[in-house]
Amino acid sequence: MEDYYYLNKVRAKTPLVHCITNIVVANFQANGLLALGASPVMADAVEEAPEIAAAANCTVLNIGTLSKETIEAMILAGKSANQHNIPVVLDPVGAGATQFRKATVFRILEEVNVSLIRCNAGELATIAGVEWRARGVDAGEGDVDLPTLARETARRFHCIVAVTGETDVVSDGKRVKEIAGGHPLMSKITGSGCLLSAVVGAYLAVSVGENFAATYEALAFYKKAGEKAAQKSQQPGHFAVHFLDELYGDM
Amino acid sequence: MEDYYYLNKVRAKTPLVHCITNIVVANFQANGLLALGASPVMADAVEEAPEIAAAANCTVLNIGTLSKETIEAMILAGKSANQHNIPVVLDPVGAGATQFRKATVFRILEEVNVSLIRCNAGELATIAGVEWRARGVDAGEGDVDLPTLARETARRFHCIVAVTGETDVVSDGKRVKEIAGGHPLMSKITGSGCLLSAVVGAYLAVSVGENFAATYEALAFYKKAGEKAAQKSQQPGHFAVHFLDELYGDM
Amino acid sequence: MEDYYYLNKVRAKTPLVHCITNIVVANFQANGLLALGASPVMADAVEEAPEIAAAANCTVLNIGTLSKETIEAMILAGKSANQHNIPVVLDPVGAGATQFRKATVFRILEEVNVSLIRCNAGELATIAGVEWRARGVDAGEGDVDLPTLARETARRFHCIVAVTGETDVVSDGKRVKEIAGGHPLMSKITGSGCLLSAVVGAYLAVSVGENFAATYEALAFYKKAGEKAAQKSQQPGHFAVHFLDELYGDM
Repeated sequence: MEDYYYLNKVRAKTPLVHCITNIVVANFQANGLLALGASPVMADAVEEAPEIAAAANCTVLNIGTLSKETIEAMILAGKSANQHNIPVVLDPVGAGATQFRKATVFRILEEVNVSLIRCNAGELATIAGVEWRARGVDAGEGDVDLPTLARETARRFHCIVAVTGETDVVSDGKRVKEIAGGHPLMSKITGSGCLLSAVVGAYLAVSVGENFAATYEALAFYKKAGEKAAQKSQQPGHFAVHFLDELYGDM
Repeated sequence: MEDYYYLNKVRAKTPLVHCITNIVVANFQANGLLALGASPVMADAVEEAPEIAAAANCTVLNIGTLSKETIEAMILAGKSANQHNIPVVLDPVGAGATQFRKATVFRILEEVNVSLIRCNAGELATIAGVEWRARGVDAGEGDVDLPTLARETARRFHCIVAVTGETDVVSDGKRVKEIAGGHPLMSKITGSGCLLSAVVGAYLAVSVGENFAATYEALAFYKKAGEKAAQKSQQPGHFAVHFLDELYGDM
Repeated sequence: MEDYYYLNKVRAKTPLVHCITNIVVANFQANGLLALGASPVMADAVEEAPEIAAAANCTVLNIGTLSKETIEAMILAGKSANQHNIPVVLDPVGAGATQFRKATVFRILEEVNVSLIRCNAGELATIAGVEWRARGVDAGEGDVDLPTLARETARRFHCIVAVTGETDVVSDGKRVKEIAGGHPLMSKITGSGCLLSAVVGAYLAVSVGENFAATYEALAFYKKAGEKAAQKSQQPGHFAVHFLDELYGDM
């Protein structure tokens, strides 16, 4: 099916997706990548992160539970991926929640060429330096023109920006596309955004030169999986289980 | 409904619950808080834990998988919460299992004003310095008068003590109440106690000056959720999924 | 039932299984051990790992997400277990993926007397020093005679070697047995191998002097649980939930 052009490639190639990630979502992210048809590897020690990054087909940097050492591992892994022309995804979880997170996000964006920033509206606002009301790692609220902000941020960092929420916005600095759909229960399971970053990473791993189209397809597929899972259960425990099944689904 | 006075407040205010927690239960704790209607944020780096604690509505310190650095983060976060009059919950997981854990628990209790200790009988015995036979992080067995021990410990540390098990005991140093119910399967899923500590934290976040009543309601609600989940499944895999659904349940 | 000789012992004795493990599977491993009837304790700080190991009935060393500090904790815990004649299981996750992992595996095998190596074919090839094509933490592919390699490796390190995959192979350096069965979905849930290492650890804890027979029974039971779970669901989200139920199952 046309809608699953890149997903079919993921399933055919089972890309190795290297995640430096947080203790909250590591399990869900690994299970989600396996269900999708990719092969996850989590490795965040400075001693091995660059070697894993060089062997992987994509590296995903997630700042959900930071430490001094994992930051160094992220920088080393990101640079290693850059040297080997392997896509790097940045998930700036709760970028605005603390000075530490904000400084880390900007350090990564300065030292590593990121292929994609996958974030929520509050995190984008932090990166773009605009006013926003956020708490913790939630998206929060504010009055910004997301499509414009996404495009400007994509241009500034020479990457794709995917801002997800009720309506997703994706831009490569020129084009901007929006994706409606999904389901509110997706914000009731922890790590749905984190897993999405890794899922898009798997798509980028099989779509050299077509990052924008691949990201768009990944976001649309993910929203559709949320809708289908919500048809099976309207409660978060079962919804999460169905959601993994939908990522695996036979289309 | 009268039974859900504080739960309704939690759902209306979606308190931000900051957890410094262990790698085993982080995911379950986050999903449980989301299901309940609270907003979890896990952050254990010394560089940001106090800033997160200051912005949160409650901080939960869980010593399940300790390290030197997370202990410092707990102390800093606890002091920061104290300065901002934000409740602090201590979950002394396996307090008696090692000297390291025991010393950490007493250090936290000395340096931080804890609003609530949520523990099992063996952990309470360790804190109170009475004989007990425990192994690892299990409750273990011993002959103590839990209501008396809970009241004395609450008085000693000027906090609420909630000892959970087959029958829960809660005391503020004067009053003591017991809560029967629940289901044995709750001890067959990892982190049910850890999640409870975070759940009570969400209740404390919305009940200034009413900690005793709020804790009591939280414990009763949690036991009821366990009973309802066990009506849906008598096996631990499905029980855990139903349990999350019950925390979310429409009452 | 004859098939569940050691499982009945596990359930009667609820052995304390100490895991130094990775952030991806810690929750699944703990829930799996609880479902089985064992008692998990995760503790990886150098300050307490040897004390926990001494009190436990088995220690499981899993190198899935390494750090400098957890390596020291593994060595200390392993030596402590050796001093107390407590079995030690080594799970060399992705042993061939990086120099760091490979060096760690050999360091553990040199400094600790390991009772059992539970690995996949690619990890065994790395330990045995033979050619193999692996990526990340997957099993990979190669042309080796697994039964011979397992027997030689078991002889070299004076331990049981259990290589799991489509067909499991177990050897004590003399005998070699194979176990068919299981289900492909087991490789679609993260941590199924890691949990198996802990499950076998629980069996070893109750079978002094009968490690080979106990390992064989554990592998056969685990494959059977996978088959039964797959009869209930053919999708990874639900399969994982059913799998935990089967570990708990009333036989």
